[in-house]
Amino acid sequence: MVFTPSGIEAAAAPGTTVLDTARAAGVDIDSVCGGRGLCGRCQVVPGTGHFAKWGLTSTADALTAPGTTEREYRGRRPLGMGHRLGCQAGVLADVVIDVPAQSQVHRPVVRKAIDLGAITVDPVVSLHYVVLPPAALGDESSDAERLTDALADQWGLAAVEVPAGALPGLSAAVAAGSGAVTAVVHSRRRDHGPGDASPPVERRVLTVRPGYVDEAYGVAVDVGSTTVAGYLLNLASGEVVATAGRMNPQIRFGEDLMSRVSYAMLNPGGTAELTQAVREAIDELVDELSHAAKVDRAAVCELVVVGNPIMHHLVLGIDPTPLGAAPFTLAVRDGVWADARDIGLDLPGAALYVGPCIAGHVGADAVAALLAEGPHRSSRPMLVVDVGTNAEILLGDGTRVWAASSPTGPAFEGAQISGGQRATAGAIERVRIDPDTLEPRYKVIGSERWSDDPGFAGSLSSLEISGLCGSGIIEVIAEMFLAGIIDHRGVIRGELAARSPRIVADGRTFAYVLQTEPVPLSVTQNDVRAVQLAKAALRAGIDLLMTHAGITEPAEVRLAGAFGAHISPVHAMVLGLVPDGPVDGVTGVGNASGAGAARMLVSGSQRAEAEHAARSVVKIETATEARFQELFVAAMALPHEAAATTHLERVVDLPPRPPAGTHQAGTRRTRPHRDRRTRQEQP
Amino acid sequence: MVFTPSGIEAAAAPGTTVLDTARAAGVDIDSVCGGRGLCGRCQVVPGTGHFAKWGLTSTADALTAPGTTEREYRGRRPLGMGHRLGCQAGVLADVVIDVPAQSQVHRPVVRKAIDLGAITVDPVVSLHYVVLPPAALGDESSDAERLTDALADQWGLAAVEVPAGALPGLSAAVAAGSGAVTAVVHSRRRDHGPGDASPPVERRVLTVRPGYVDEAYGVAVDVGSTTVAGYLLNLASGEVVATAGRMNPQIRFGEDLMSRVSYAMLNPGGTAELTQAVREAIDELVDELSHAAKVDRAAVCELVVVGNPIMHHLVLGIDPTPLGAAPFTLAVRDGVWADARDIGLDLPGAALYVGPCIAGHVGADAVAALLAEGPHRSSRPMLVVDVGTNAEILLGDGTRVWAASSPTGPAFEGAQISGGQRATAGAIERVRIDPDTLEPRYKVIGSERWSDDPGFAGSLSSLEISGLCGSGIIEVIAEMFLAGIIDHRGVIRGELAARSPRIVADGRTFAYVLQTEPVPLSVTQNDVRAVQLAKAALRAGIDLLMTHAGITEPAEVRLAGAFGAHISPVHAMVLGLVPDGPVDGVTGVGNASGAGAARMLVSGSQRAEAEHAARSVVKIETATEARFQELFVAAMALPHEAAATTHLERVVDLPPRPPAGTHQAGTRRTRPHRDRRTRQEQP
Repeated sequence: MVFTPSGIEAAAAPGTTVLDTARAAGVDIDSVCGGRGLCGRCQVVPGTGHFAKWGLTSTADALTAPGTTEREYRGRRPLGMGHRLGCQAGVLADVVIDVPAQSQVHRPVVRKAIDLGAITVDPVVSLHYVVLPPAALGDESSDAERLTDALADQWGLAAVEVPAGALPGLSAAVAAGSGAVTAVVHSRRRDHGPGDASPPVERRVLTVRPGYVDEAYGVAVDVGSTTVAGYLLNLASGEVVATAGRMNPQIRFGEDLMSRVSYAMLNPGGTAELTQAVREAIDELVDELSHAAKVDRAAVCELVVVGNPIMHHLVLGIDPTPLGAAPFTLAVRDGVWADARDIGLDLPGAALYVGPCIAGHVGADAVAALLAEGPHRSSRPMLVVDVGTNAEILLGDGTRVWAASSPTGPAFEGAQISGGQRATAGAIERVRIDPDTLEPRYKVIGSERWSDDPGFAGSLSSLEISGLCGSGIIEVIAEMFLAGIIDHRGVIRGELAARSPRIVADGRTFAYVLQTEPVPLSVTQNDVRAVQLAKAALRAGIDLLMTHAGITEPAEVRLAGAFGAHISPVHAMVLGLVPDGPVDGVTGVGNASGAGAARMLVSGSQRAEAEHAARSVVKIETATEARFQELFVAAMALPHEAAATTHLERVVDLPPRPPAGTHQAGTRRTRPHRDRRTRQEQP
Repeated sequence: MVFTPSGIEAAAAPGTTVLDTARAAGVDIDSVCGGRGLCGRCQVVPGTGHFAKWGLTSTADALTAPGTTEREYRGRRPLGMGHRLGCQAGVLADVVIDVPAQSQVHRPVVRKAIDLGAITVDPVVSLHYVVLPPAALGDESSDAERLTDALADQWGLAAVEVPAGALPGLSAAVAAGSGAVTAVVHSRRRDHGPGDASPPVERRVLTVRPGYVDEAYGVAVDVGSTTVAGYLLNLASGEVVATAGRMNPQIRFGEDLMSRVSYAMLNPGGTAELTQAVREAIDELVDELSHAAKVDRAAVCELVVVGNPIMHHLVLGIDPTPLGAAPFTLAVRDGVWADARDIGLDLPGAALYVGPCIAGHVGADAVAALLAEGPHRSSRPMLVVDVGTNAEILLGDGTRVWAASSPTGPAFEGAQISGGQRATAGAIERVRIDPDTLEPRYKVIGSERWSDDPGFAGSLSSLEISGLCGSGIIEVIAEMFLAGIIDHRGVIRGELAARSPRIVADGRTFAYVLQTEPVPLSVTQNDVRAVQLAKAALRAGIDLLMTHAGITEPAEVRLAGAFGAHISPVHAMVLGLVPDGPVDGVTGVGNASGAGAARMLVSGSQRAEAEHAARSVVKIETATEARFQELFVAAMALPHEAAATTHLERVVDLPPRPPAGTHQAGTRRTRPHRDRRTRQEQP
């Protein structure tokens, strides 16, 4: 059986409860009552249908029928439709069990508030208080006309349309406000083609509220493959009033993007299922945000959504299959102006803007990051890197911006790493290794102290150190390199076993032991290889763009995403993840995509800038560049086989570089990790 | 208990089946198996909730629980959700039983094909076959861009938008057609306000179909209070390819418009229920039309809906309550450009246009009739009258058009008349009375022969003569007047009882007997009064408009609606329903509203003409005109107390007119029939 979203596979003796099986397998399921069927925190959902990923057909019948405890359960958390109590349901056959976010102890956290920078707040949604003249017998003008006349007379807004969606609530609002109402108006400046010197502004009324209303809100959503992050903003002030995140529920259809494309391709109705899952997550996010900020959902006037091309397509209900094969053609590249109800959200009066993409591999999330970080505005060479399962890379040289997407795989997110895990409480996020003793010290999410601080153990409370998150993985490997535990080729030096009990044999290779309790945690040779492959893919993409731009050294490097926010610039440079350059020019910028989405939300001119920038970026297709393979191989070494490390050497002592051409054949044979099927078929 | 939509009340001994009760009460319910629970044709739906109209709370429990026959019913017509077999369900308590259209033998018939006249077909929806250049790796343009570029290059259509709704099907169509697709494009010419000399055309793609497609269809719908009529048209040729009609299912919430407004006002969620009912009827109509013409629903690209203001609002989901009280303010008067899915229709790629209204009492159906008949285009005085529960009256004088709505009540539709019924098979639609013998002859719907034809009885087959429909009522009373059976004041002359057994005493008044078998059918004094009141309301409205226009005699009178299509012009003039004028200038024009809706569907310029005309019509509010009451009283007499009958006298022998001022006090005291509550309160 398989648990989602974690993807953990487990075996269970027939009749063992889902909760016991999950615990034995290390699956994160909440429980307070200890399996007594009282708290309702362990609710799970048996999957139905065929799950190609695991070659497994799952039905609700694979669990025991609900017994008395479950049938009579009336706890504080009502049992959701199709949900089972994990502590009561016994496993009878192979099954896929989804653990909803509410049933997980460790939910993903949006760890950093976004920074919108110094932009002018000029949202496309504006509020206009108007007083309508009273209706009189013999005056045949409708409420809609009196409203549009008032908007023209009192606000100079010509030709505002009152569309069908705004009509049902109109007359009641006018009556409730005795003619005084606040119109929520959406404006879109649109070019109607050649010969249209002054493009008109298309204005429409989203909703009409009785009386004077001065608060309007919007939600910016960044749909990642793993996490969906949402920000509730006050459209008048541009202030972020609430932040929330949750797992992308599509994970149950596949961990990485390509397995979701496969799901859509192989299952009839698969696109609709994936779309439904992500739209529900967005809807729940809006709920959570509005509850957190105590803002009425009806006050949410616009939603901006960004995401990678596959998420972008799935949110819009578009089959992403064409994005899985060359020529990776998008259905739509420009920003999509629509209504929230067009994507099935229960936000009757809200507009929707789905950000523009650049190309089949570089999506609206990259455009949003571009808008937030501004390589197209920078006069100095600026590199923006957003690391996820795919890395999006943007490079500006002061005149143009180049973009590429590189298939890094999920190693940086903790997958395919023996001790890897998501960035949730209990994960090691920072590591230092003493080069003399080879002893590590570390910091875990959920505690402010380093492991060698006296109060560390106490600060953990009930927290269990469970694994390494992305930034922890980068740091531990960079520190292992700096401490001489691994060499330039990434080989763990077994001879050090004599010097420290932390270096242990692991089959024919060696491993570095971080801890043995409560769970054993080591960095294996395979882990180092996985990180090398991921970083080589990323770095080769960066080097390819630098070659195109004729840049040898970026003045600034912005590391975006949850990963980038927590990574240490020096360690990133030690690994060779980013090219040599001023070390203080390397900064983590948090969720740049979220910040960009928020910019698009609160500013029409930012939105126009995004649309223009998306169209003018030069996309470099790594798949068709012969140099990519060559750059990839050179980037396998630590920090890099050939590139300069001048800036880096000023801040750390790098181990001596070996003479050129000494790497092992084994390294040479390594192919870049590719998660796109068609690319795998290429030589 | 009450049956809907007929409104027939019935009493049933406990346990009597619904079917038996219905038959005893004369309710139209189909059955083929004769109550054996086999055919499934007698399906009925018990009402749930409080029905204020009958002061009756109805629940499904008022019927016996389903027995074996019903539970095991597996007939060819599946038992609908919440449906019961009328032959099996026994009545236990007071209940409202709805008889769906499918369970009625006599469904309303759209009796006349519409005539679109000599218009140019220029639909706002057009088909454009384009061949997209193949996508290539390195070319980042999306399918949407390649499509809009092709529309610009190959068709000169600039700035066509591909909205969210068209995106999900786009790439699949492009792939299926190997780049050759037909785009369904919707164009709207829109004025963006002052200074916008050349208004741009807003163009958007509704759907994209693979390959070459040359057929596009549209549906024009006229939503009447009683009947919903639909027409399927080929948008390329303007040809009407199918016609269908059904009862407006809202009838179960109230027979006339005001009782539906009351329902919306008094019941929480009442508007939503009424909206849901009419939208479902439209959806079913689209289904029926597309089946009849063997046209795929997906080929339906646009829907045009017209209706009176209350139907117009309910289709759009707008609470019609404000239309029930002064100042009768519309929520929206201009045409509404939207999508079919905005009103919940399962027509994913179809646009929706809801026609403009003129005022709170003169709706989009009147504008459609105006467009079809063209009083605004006529150089001679033209009167257009659409008679229903309310009569809409339009009068053009060659320069302007005046409009009024007059509360005729339902007498012309057969309600409030002892032998009245809807225009379904078995209804008497034409009557002649021999002035010498006072013997009647008549024609019934469903037979081509007059009752005095030798083959008449045989032509009836199993048809039962059951009542008088609207045109039959008009004719019988006009004929009674011409034969001298009633006088100018509308009094049935009892002294004729000596001359003919057809004149019989009926309490203190007299009645004229049409038949005694199979059902007794007479015209009573009350029936004559009801028709007099209805015609006086209509005629007073007409006379009011003529006064405003300074016209004494219309050159043309167009009688619209099912009623107008079958009325005899001479009889209408004898009754004084229409003013004196050239008798051959009076014509029945069928469903002018449907014809106008069809014009709006197949022609953008017709749609623009309708929008312009709706705004320029001068609305006369009968409620605020002091003269209306005076004109009403004068119009009670047959044909009229004061108006000339010069033209009429050339074609019939009118009974001698009595000296002025001789009508009875009883007639003078009569008030116009008013179905609007606020008006009833006026003196």
